[in-house]
Amino acid sequence: MEFRGSDLLTVEQFDLDDLRTIMDTAERMEVYATRQKVTRVLEGSVLGNLFFSPSTRSRISFGAAFNRLGGAVRDTSSIDQSSIAKGESLEATARVVSGYTDAIVIRYSEEGAASVVAEASPLPVINGGDGSNEHPTQALLDLYTLLKERKIDLDGVDGLCISIGGDLKYGRAAHSFVKELSIFRNMHFNLVAPDELQMPDGIVSKLRDKGHTVDQMSDLSRGIQDVDAIYMTRNQEDRMSPGEAERFRGKISLDRRTYERRARPDTTIMHPLPIDSRPGAQEIKPDLYQHPNFAVYRQTDNGIPTRMAVYALLLGVADRVRETECDAIWHSPDSDKSIPS
Amino acid sequence: MEFRGSDLLTVEQFDLDDLRTIMDTAERMEVYATRQKVTRVLEGSVLGNLFFSPSTRSRISFGAAFNRLGGAVRDTSSIDQSSIAKGESLEATARVVSGYTDAIVIRYSEEGAASVVAEASPLPVINGGDGSNEHPTQALLDLYTLLKERKIDLDGVDGLCISIGGDLKYGRAAHSFVKELSIFRNMHFNLVAPDELQMPDGIVSKLRDKGHTVDQMSDLSRGIQDVDAIYMTRNQEDRMSPGEAERFRGKISLDRRTYERRARPDTTIMHPLPIDSRPGAQEIKPDLYQHPNFAVYRQTDNGIPTRMAVYALLLGVADRVRETECDAIWHSPDSDKSIPS
Amino acid sequence: MEFRGSDLLTVEQFDLDDLRTIMDTAERMEVYATRQKVTRVLEGSVLGNLFFSPSTRSRISFGAAFNRLGGAVRDTSSIDQSSIAKGESLEATARVVSGYTDAIVIRYSEEGAASVVAEASPLPVINGGDGSNEHPTQALLDLYTLLKERKIDLDGVDGLCISIGGDLKYGRAAHSFVKELSIFRNMHFNLVAPDELQMPDGIVSKLRDKGHTVDQMSDLSRGIQDVDAIYMTRNQEDRMSPGEAERFRGKISLDRRTYERRARPDTTIMHPLPIDSRPGAQEIKPDLYQHPNFAVYRQTDNGIPTRMAVYALLLGVADRVRETECDAIWHSPDSDKSIPS
Repeated sequence: MEFRGSDLLTVEQFDLDDLRTIMDTAERMEVYATRQKVTRVLEGSVLGNLFFSPSTRSRISFGAAFNRLGGAVRDTSSIDQSSIAKGESLEATARVVSGYTDAIVIRYSEEGAASVVAEASPLPVINGGDGSNEHPTQALLDLYTLLKERKIDLDGVDGLCISIGGDLKYGRAAHSFVKELSIFRNMHFNLVAPDELQMPDGIVSKLRDKGHTVDQMSDLSRGIQDVDAIYMTRNQEDRMSPGEAERFRGKISLDRRTYERRARPDTTIMHPLPIDSRPGAQEIKPDLYQHPNFAVYRQTDNGIPTRMAVYALLLGVADRVRETECDAIWHSPDSDKSIPS
Repeated sequence: MEFRGSDLLTVEQFDLDDLRTIMDTAERMEVYATRQKVTRVLEGSVLGNLFFSPSTRSRISFGAAFNRLGGAVRDTSSIDQSSIAKGESLEATARVVSGYTDAIVIRYSEEGAASVVAEASPLPVINGGDGSNEHPTQALLDLYTLLKERKIDLDGVDGLCISIGGDLKYGRAAHSFVKELSIFRNMHFNLVAPDELQMPDGIVSKLRDKGHTVDQMSDLSRGIQDVDAIYMTRNQEDRMSPGEAERFRGKISLDRRTYERRARPDTTIMHPLPIDSRPGAQEIKPDLYQHPNFAVYRQTDNGIPTRMAVYALLLGVADRVRETECDAIWHSPDSDKSIPS
Repeated sequence: MEFRGSDLLTVEQFDLDDLRTIMDTAERMEVYATRQKVTRVLEGSVLGNLFFSPSTRSRISFGAAFNRLGGAVRDTSSIDQSSIAKGESLEATARVVSGYTDAIVIRYSEEGAASVVAEASPLPVINGGDGSNEHPTQALLDLYTLLKERKIDLDGVDGLCISIGGDLKYGRAAHSFVKELSIFRNMHFNLVAPDELQMPDGIVSKLRDKGHTVDQMSDLSRGIQDVDAIYMTRNQEDRMSPGEAERFRGKISLDRRTYERRARPDTTIMHPLPIDSRPGAQEIKPDLYQHPNFAVYRQTDNGIPTRMAVYALLLGVADRVRETECDAIWHSPDSDKSIPS
């Protein structure tokens, strides 16, 4: 695809070359993301960071990544504050904000919202999560994490075995990641969830149509055997009925003992965050947080170079980032970041 | 008036020369507002963007315009988050924030709030809308839109016929716009509203005292005949009783058929936004959104150069904007922006 | 202490040399804080300004101070918007945000929250107020104010007599200020509060152990006699039961008549703000706001140079601030700021 001026709505718009461009660009952003260098390539530009459903993490990640390129960020963080409460349509809000900014990130509780915004806006629009549909920059940072953790390039993704566990019905991160991986060849997926929370059939068929093998199961200890990476997700309780939330809480949960007995010793552990850390939930038990293969915080860190890459590509400045480069003179911690226990 | 260091509280503080200065300055800001050039004239400065009642659009517009001049923005977006909830007076909050910032925008639900803030603050204070009283930068961008859409200069405003329709009682945008236009000569106004929502008598008398002619009516199809521009406004239902809201919803509504039958073919259609797009409301019907005379989104775009002009004048840097000018190297859409349908 | 890379959690981590370093650095920041000069030493860096309980003033102060050093700020302003609402632990949120930013300010309703964040984050973490525990940058700006108002240096603090009045039980600003002053020698404290709202015994014992004298009393007119400064605080009604709130409201209240009759004519009046300005409350009566010794708004202004100093020291750039210095060309008010009445 031609990135300059495009929207990023779904991982399905990418082919292998597109992924290569994004991963390469993200790699070149590492030096700024890790605060060794400063770039001001987007100085003077403004991001409209429109979060119409609750988020701290993603909102800050999208904003900070734009700041790291030198741009300014205007935020909205709740639907209550919005003209939408006064009866303005999402289309109209999108068009209005397009007159003020250079790119838009949209998170909204309904599926398809990002497409609506993209239709109404002449700017590059990035889907920051629309209901249980998609969250494509999450999928990009997940892929970037897989490459770095497995120490492989894109060709190395072919043939990997991946376990995806948790709420696969409502979890948009899992949907986007699986769709993205379907671009590669000869992969195997263990989809581990209670029957009622399994991956939508349409996505499973697509995997099989593209020649991947898929096992669906509800037993995690079986599902993590002989895989390269385990991708766990929390239950999206806000999208469930109270009865469902209750019934499935804690059903799929990875602990250290099971991991060490059943998984290969080098199996990467990923999670799109947040982990549901309430005692009855905990799809990953705290006893795994200190494990060297627990890549979850490195994964979230990867949101910065990945989202910087997306902005740089869509705004057409990926090749000009170094022009404004200078040293970062302030203190930053060593690269070995501590992990909360 | 002397702009440098002044407050902007009401359109009534302007004479014709002041409007000329603001319009000329806004014109010079276009090149930055449309992202052809970057200026950093306010680099190092901070705006206190204090919104104590809900707003997405205006808050982002005020903030983005300051960013486009190179300044930083600190926002507040809800009264609940505020020291005011702890019993601090608005005066005290204003004085405190004045120690942190270089200019203040204040939106507050009560009339006169902006004057209270201006009294307490040594900084330039801009009224971002105080209850149903005034919204002076809206009036400035409305005038700027009128000039651009009618392809006239300020002298060309004399003698124009303008229809103002909708909730003229509670709508502060309509109040500010009409007061501003009263500065010109020999204009004619059709004020179209249900009797109970007509323009306050004080404003109407002022128009007549200044030699303008005014017709008050409730029939929109009559009110849009032989005018240069139609300025529609939504019902301010949050300021009405539930009974009023119900009764007047959808009463004044412009559709394409009526517009094409009754209005002159070049009549400009304006609206300060948001349009109430709920099916029963819709003071402008969606079938007009694609009409070339529907200037509403160009109007909101004009908020950026207009507010940039206000900041530059009040902070005394209007003549120095070009000193820090450089090219904007990132992608921006063509000037023909799409309009949501 | 070594500032570079450290956290700022409590005033108890400072010795006299540390305070000297901070006060000297704050003094050097005045030229930027008062907008005579601009520095961009932190350009490219990002602050995570995490406010999980309501605040306008402090949040803007922390953010604006970072902006004045050239950095960008990503805010969060309410617990509802947070991943914490989705079951994510505070530790995890802290670790995640550490991947996006260069320093973290944390305000949280529970005591010890800042330590939890500091433990989980490799970045410099600044306690922006944790429950009724501490608010160390407030204590620093209070000390800075004391120096400037009394026209003394740090050696001049020894031997001062200070009256602390109001809610000394729940008021973290009073706790932090008293602990900080305990570092000096031979001071005298009048602690003026209703018996039930007196200073925690642990803090009083510490003062006495360090050789200071302390009088505890509930009569303010006696407590303000023969002191150098009066430090008033509001009742923290959100931390009291409704009955307590009712009972103690307005109990300790300083008015002009009492002040002029009982206090020495040069006695400095301080308050960490916000003042509870509701008619029945008013720990400082409005008739004192115009008094030349009412230093409260100068005190809040001092938040900017003090917090700039803290950032510059923790991020290791205090000696490099002048390298990027240039003139501030925009209008700023004269230094004699008006005071709301």
